[in-house]
Amino acid sequence: MTSFSFDLIHEDPNSQARAGVIHTPHGDIPTPVFAPVGTQATVKTLTPHDLYDLDVTLILSNTYHLYLRPGADLIAEFGGLHQFMQWERPILTDSGGFQVFSLEGLRKIDEDGVNFRSHIDGSKHRFTPETVIGIQEKLGADIIMCFDECPAPDNYDYNVEALARTHRWAERCKSAQTRTDQALYGIVQGGIFADLRAKSAEFLSSLDFLGYSIGGLSVGESKADMHAMLEVVNPILPRHKPRYLMGVGSPEDLFECVARGVDQFDCVLPTRIARNGAVFTKRGRINLRNARFATDKQPIESDCTCYTCRMFSTAYIRHLLVAKETLALRLTTLHNLHFMLDTMRQIRESILDGTFVSYKDAFLTAYQPVPEENRQSRK
Amino acid sequence: MTSFSFDLIHEDPNSQARAGVIHTPHGDIPTPVFAPVGTQATVKTLTPHDLYDLDVTLILSNTYHLYLRPGADLIAEFGGLHQFMQWERPILTDSGGFQVFSLEGLRKIDEDGVNFRSHIDGSKHRFTPETVIGIQEKLGADIIMCFDECPAPDNYDYNVEALARTHRWAERCKSAQTRTDQALYGIVQGGIFADLRAKSAEFLSSLDFLGYSIGGLSVGESKADMHAMLEVVNPILPRHKPRYLMGVGSPEDLFECVARGVDQFDCVLPTRIARNGAVFTKRGRINLRNARFATDKQPIESDCTCYTCRMFSTAYIRHLLVAKETLALRLTTLHNLHFMLDTMRQIRESILDGTFVSYKDAFLTAYQPVPEENRQSRK
Repeated sequence: MTSFSFDLIHEDPNSQARAGVIHTPHGDIPTPVFAPVGTQATVKTLTPHDLYDLDVTLILSNTYHLYLRPGADLIAEFGGLHQFMQWERPILTDSGGFQVFSLEGLRKIDEDGVNFRSHIDGSKHRFTPETVIGIQEKLGADIIMCFDECPAPDNYDYNVEALARTHRWAERCKSAQTRTDQALYGIVQGGIFADLRAKSAEFLSSLDFLGYSIGGLSVGESKADMHAMLEVVNPILPRHKPRYLMGVGSPEDLFECVARGVDQFDCVLPTRIARNGAVFTKRGRINLRNARFATDKQPIESDCTCYTCRMFSTAYIRHLLVAKETLALRLTTLHNLHFMLDTMRQIRESILDGTFVSYKDAFLTAYQPVPEENRQSRK
Repeated sequence: MTSFSFDLIHEDPNSQARAGVIHTPHGDIPTPVFAPVGTQATVKTLTPHDLYDLDVTLILSNTYHLYLRPGADLIAEFGGLHQFMQWERPILTDSGGFQVFSLEGLRKIDEDGVNFRSHIDGSKHRFTPETVIGIQEKLGADIIMCFDECPAPDNYDYNVEALARTHRWAERCKSAQTRTDQALYGIVQGGIFADLRAKSAEFLSSLDFLGYSIGGLSVGESKADMHAMLEVVNPILPRHKPRYLMGVGSPEDLFECVARGVDQFDCVLPTRIARNGAVFTKRGRINLRNARFATDKQPIESDCTCYTCRMFSTAYIRHLLVAKETLALRLTTLHNLHFMLDTMRQIRESILDGTFVSYKDAFLTAYQPVPEENRQSRK
């Protein structure tokens, strides 16, 4: 597995923030990094060249969705996901666990794996740690995930049971791996319980994965709980391995979680809200469908350098949204991804030049977050 | 109106085909030309830069739609449609007549104009020749249209009555025009009746418009009728003015109608069928949703130079279509517009080098048209 490594370049003395570089067979990923989500082998509305223009360095794709459609064997026939979707930079695939365990009433867990029915056609399928690694090896992402159980975060007894299973499955995933050019990450679980999170971080650290994911923290628990769990887990995880907070986050999450030692993020939020007409600004989120934008000649943000803001008035984008023109969704998606990526680039710069904490304070003073929203739906 | 002119460069000795250049305040348009349709101030799924990359030289936008939403006054406040949608090249607006007369049961015609209800919210509106010119002057396109009545093509008595009204309205439109930087075209009507078409072409020629549209030939009549009407009209129209066949056409229409003296086309067909997964190839139209494309590693056409064909396998595009990913619609739209524009560029080259008739024969021998489809819906 010499093709994957993580260089820790700088640690902020005033927080737990870190700057580094992940090296992969498809190029380098400066960290901290935000990965846009390309669930079905496409970041919705965008081409690979749009993503290069945004300087996206990593995308996430969903194993569950690709396994069902178009199928892992088909993608393998094309030489893997990079070739299939013509994306030349790094890809991360999740394990499918999050999606499968979200299929309430359509799945049944046993010690060996999970039976479930497709949300597309109701057909029967089974995931085990071994099949999930096999699927991810066919997809061929640079970073892959252990098959984990992602329970509701607030039931202690069930989290104890699920965590034990997740740990047994982590060992099986490690044993099942045959490719040496993919980095397998272990996934820390344990709900909102500090003792379980600590136990999980310790156990998985002992298995010596190339990176560590922190799962189950984007599913409805409070932000305070999320922060508390990061403060438990990150000091335990190996210092020289990347730490990936799955399914997070919002702009404010980037700052709060980088400050607590997270290196990697992915989230559907920027692209999903874009398709509802909502865009990020430095003062908070606004919805462009609002009538007050009907005559607005200014771009979404006057100092934004994204294609959308360089080209179009807010009134024009609002017109496209109201007229149900799909170009609107592409333009808002471009803006929101640029906002997230550019913010993350500035976060990284501020870590390197020692100004992270003051940049964080300035950003969060100006930015009005949407309070305590559930940051990720399960489908 | 010195800002608009038409240079007739070459006339094919073996057909009525012509090559020329239309000069406008926003640049030159080599003819014959195919104009993509941007109904609501956007060619669906594409940015202006996508259109520049395709080397689109003219787009059509719909007066009826823009009048209702976002409104001509709003667009005028932005400095016109070019600025509003950030498209720097020539634009043509239709008169709204075609759309308004299509609102069966929602419109009432009198000598002075038409009362109608919005298809969006049922609100009441009135178009007259004078208001329609006023709206088009606010929109600010380079080429604008007279307000015409577009009746069903096969009722002789009604066509006689409608044509007389269209001619009176043409005179009123000419008188109503105040801007000198827009080229106003007269619209020849007359259904499928040679005597009415000839009368219309003669009358409108006497009014000395800067260009001539041929209307009412994309609404369900046969292709044989369409060809017959072109053979009546074009020899009457002034030789040194552009001739624009409205709402046409398919790939085969380009050849058949250029051969009969048409210089300008617009049609929703390439972009509309693209959004249903149908794409043009040199052998005819195919639908990429078909299961036979599920494993197809080749591009839609191996010698096509469009972005879609340079980048993606047919199987990937089919996957996007089946998974309902909007990127699919953008990729098929790019391909179909490239097909139309590139075919038209080759038609123009073949006119200039004297090989048009043989190119037409070769293209039509290879290309299997969809038989006698109704080429334009009214909404």
